[in-house]
Amino acid sequence: MAMIDVTLGVDIGGTNTKFGLVDREGKGITEMSIPTNAHEPAENLIARLHEKVEEMCRPLTGKYTLKGIGIGAPNANFYRGTVENPPNLNWKGVVDVAALVRKYYDLPVAVTNDANAAALGEMLYGAAKGMKNFVVITLGTGLGSGIVAGGDLVYGADGFAGEIGHTIVDPQGRECGCGGRGHLETYASATGICRTVGELLSRRRTESELRAIAPRDLTSKMIADAAGRGDGIAKEAFEFTGRILGMKLSDSVAHLSPEAIILFGGLASAGALIFDPTKRALEEYLLPIFRNKVKLLPSGLKEGDAAVLGASALIWNEILKQRKQ
Amino acid sequence: MAMIDVTLGVDIGGTNTKFGLVDREGKGITEMSIPTNAHEPAENLIARLHEKVEEMCRPLTGKYTLKGIGIGAPNANFYRGTVENPPNLNWKGVVDVAALVRKYYDLPVAVTNDANAAALGEMLYGAAKGMKNFVVITLGTGLGSGIVAGGDLVYGADGFAGEIGHTIVDPQGRECGCGGRGHLETYASATGICRTVGELLSRRRTESELRAIAPRDLTSKMIADAAGRGDGIAKEAFEFTGRILGMKLSDSVAHLSPEAIILFGGLASAGALIFDPTKRALEEYLLPIFRNKVKLLPSGLKEGDAAVLGASALIWNEILKQRKQ
Repeated sequence: MAMIDVTLGVDIGGTNTKFGLVDREGKGITEMSIPTNAHEPAENLIARLHEKVEEMCRPLTGKYTLKGIGIGAPNANFYRGTVENPPNLNWKGVVDVAALVRKYYDLPVAVTNDANAAALGEMLYGAAKGMKNFVVITLGTGLGSGIVAGGDLVYGADGFAGEIGHTIVDPQGRECGCGGRGHLETYASATGICRTVGELLSRRRTESELRAIAPRDLTSKMIADAAGRGDGIAKEAFEFTGRILGMKLSDSVAHLSPEAIILFGGLASAGALIFDPTKRALEEYLLPIFRNKVKLLPSGLKEGDAAVLGASALIWNEILKQRKQ
Repeated sequence: MAMIDVTLGVDIGGTNTKFGLVDREGKGITEMSIPTNAHEPAENLIARLHEKVEEMCRPLTGKYTLKGIGIGAPNANFYRGTVENPPNLNWKGVVDVAALVRKYYDLPVAVTNDANAAALGEMLYGAAKGMKNFVVITLGTGLGSGIVAGGDLVYGADGFAGEIGHTIVDPQGRECGCGGRGHLETYASATGICRTVGELLSRRRTESELRAIAPRDLTSKMIADAAGRGDGIAKEAFEFTGRILGMKLSDSVAHLSPEAIILFGGLASAGALIFDPTKRALEEYLLPIFRNKVKLLPSGLKEGDAAVLGASALIWNEILKQRKQ
């Protein structure tokens, strides 16, 4: 029986590190998870990862050939194979994650951040199949983005391109985690919409079930649920969030002229609540030559699997590029 | 004697069409100009162009080999080889300029807009030599832009990427020629700075030599000259223009992480008057990971030659790409 080629996708998160074998069509063969133990040095995590990967692969010997290892991690740099001062991990300075993994495996190893991995996942297995120009926006705690132009991820001069979350909505606006002000992610993200609800509750006199929830306990899911029950403040918060997101995405279209923009992550799962106002504002602010051309799509990857699939796509994409040359 | 390879660069403007032979190092061999006659159909222009090119080349027979023809024109589409509803030419609808030229020449023909041509010119012969990630901003009547990512021009899904002039500074701001409001080019362009002077003259009581000039007669050159003589309103207009340009360019950096941004065209020739406030605002608004990394550079091409050089670079770039494959 012929061996099936697979790549290993690894998603290093602040709490858990998930990993799994994925075939060329994006089918997950097997998946596991270990605690990241964010306080430990990176060496320990990679040693534990190696142990568990070997355990996972043992029963599969003779059936699959591992072609490479793709890793998604916060503040990852594709060019250098490094993770640099990650916000949720207690790794000091610049950690050469690719080199740590290559100690155990004589295979291609590639590293990128989660939004870029998501973009490759969408291109190879998801909503952007066959597209050469598109943008993936991840609406989680912050707003991440992965840009594909001419079939390639845009990494820029230093590997850190794709920070659409830190474009400016209002130079006098909300404080951003990066030290800046009025950045898009302070409005269009799970935490951004919670801040918007806080503002609206102060500005309006309308009754709202969200008045019963302490700001630190409020989640974007609660706002979506309230909006579903007809809560006016919750509905207005989605409308406001979508308008700002759509307006700023028109700037991204002016730069890149993508075929599609794919919304991904917790806030995107609110569906029409966020897609409808975003689409309306996007079309309103687009330059006429771009109107009614840019698709606004939900992710084509299952949310739980997306990070591992995206990381595995990093290696498949390199293999595909080499074949074309 | 060995023949020298050259390409023909053609710059179709609203008034004149300039063209010339350019060698691989960007040296112009010979250059001519004919009136565009904007009211005539495109067929006539291309027929006259062919006649003059033949005349220009006749004394050079046996010395040069023509490898292809690159054309820069407003609203040009690289993918389709067309010019679509150009604002300053009376050509109806979509004109297949590449096909018109191929009637006369059995050679590679490529078409793009002037900002993209400028970007290729900078990459092959100018300030972006050896760079793979940069942005060229042309500050003329409007604001054009050409984006290079990973060594390739970003054309996007439909060939119209690179419209940074139509990103939004203020959704309630100045009326733009495209029908939108508050777009960057209504502030940061030769006409934009004239509008700013108009606003400042109304807002301030300060004396200014610019109060003697009718708005329709005012030019950005007059403002630069007045600023050079210490005129307060003129200096404030440059400061205001640079601040808006720098702030919006920080959004471009967040998307693309370029090694450099190159300012080109009439307003850029004001030198420190426009570069200094732009650079200050850019650094102020950049995400910390991008600070002190992005060069803000003047063009490396002579302004009079740049359009023809850029158009010729379009063909040299295709030849270089084929050699690499």
